[in-house]
Amino acid sequence: MNPNGPTKRTQVIRLPKRGDYSQETIYSILDAGFLCHVGFVVDGQPFVIPTGYGRSGNTLYMHGSSASRMLRTLEAGVEVCVTVTLLDGLVLARSAFHHSMNYRSVVLFGTAMLVESAEEKTEALRVISEQIVPGRWKDVRWPAEQELKATKVLALPISEASAKVRTGPPADDEEDYALNVWAGILPLSVHAEQPVPDPRISSDVTAVPDYLLKYDKRPI
Amino acid sequence: MNPNGPTKRTQVIRLPKRGDYSQETIYSILDAGFLCHVGFVVDGQPFVIPTGYGRSGNTLYMHGSSASRMLRTLEAGVEVCVTVTLLDGLVLARSAFHHSMNYRSVVLFGTAMLVESAEEKTEALRVISEQIVPGRWKDVRWPAEQELKATKVLALPISEASAKVRTGPPADDEEDYALNVWAGILPLSVHAEQPVPDPRISSDVTAVPDYLLKYDKRPI
Repeated sequence: MNPNGPTKRTQVIRLPKRGDYSQETIYSILDAGFLCHVGFVVDGQPFVIPTGYGRSGNTLYMHGSSASRMLRTLEAGVEVCVTVTLLDGLVLARSAFHHSMNYRSVVLFGTAMLVESAEEKTEALRVISEQIVPGRWKDVRWPAEQELKATKVLALPISEASAKVRTGPPADDEEDYALNVWAGILPLSVHAEQPVPDPRISSDVTAVPDYLLKYDKRPI
Repeated sequence: MNPNGPTKRTQVIRLPKRGDYSQETIYSILDAGFLCHVGFVVDGQPFVIPTGYGRSGNTLYMHGSSASRMLRTLEAGVEVCVTVTLLDGLVLARSAFHHSMNYRSVVLFGTAMLVESAEEKTEALRVISEQIVPGRWKDVRWPAEQELKATKVLALPISEASAKVRTGPPADDEEDYALNVWAGILPLSVHAEQPVPDPRISSDVTAVPDYLLKYDKRPI
């Protein structure tokens, strides 16, 4: 995800064979999720805040209230680290030591820019909305002028990123394979349950949208 | 989670009514999960790394390889931010602006201490193991001396923390309630699927452990 290969900060140090710097892998992980953890520094203190995101081309969009500490900090152009983690399963080995997790994660570094124009802001909000609930945007009332003013949107270029992926069964020490211990994978997945209508839903609304009934995004 | 109330860095600024500083709420969120995102700073650059954890009393334990950049950084006593996020559902409003998520999150600040003694290290690893897969520890081969040496364990006191919680239906602008738009909650939950045995599982192992069949922890 960098024409010259991994940079000092994206280089996967621990278990480098799990590192992957291809745009295809990084985009596929970012596109499967919608929730990231954003790291930034205020007066030397790290903060980690969960928030939704949307990807469009080589840009990751985030948004929030104009009153948000995170957005006020990031728009100043400070260094940010955005991490997306998809947990696919627990790896149960015979030894405590070789227990692990199967996961796909992306770590992305850079500085964010404030999106200023109403048109680009609206488009970014559409991208975020469609990332979190694909199909939703066409149904809802779009942001009014004063709502756009109350919302900050940040754009982070996806130019310095790495993915880390673990798959497959446990890897035990050879002498442990004979132990009488169940070993394998406990797959974890996220399910959308039956949608719960708002108690104040309009009587004109007769059907749950199809995109909610077949929802398959991964918050993690 | 602080005898004098929230501190400057744990004070929930955005939507303060969602803030909760009670030990009961903070522990219940930490105990429901097992995956955190750890933020730390190296040369001014924030890093956010996902990792498992375990809580025992007022201590959060994390572990990893002695070669890990994160653990080498944290053991030096730098400021750390640990965030745990449990996403309960998507909040679908009539307006794009009032879309939200239902979640429970904890943000924890402090400095971690390296756990030195073999006994406390083993106990911390038991705590982490039981947090991730309750019931597992009794079944597995416990860490040998050289495995303990290859593992770093950090202890973070849970003394400066805040929780943030959103529940309930969307809150739309009054004039939007009449819109012909489906609104409500899409609940999200994590499921453990059928365990997948290691291809090399010993023929002496005849049953999948009960704690895997009824697994109900939340990675998010």
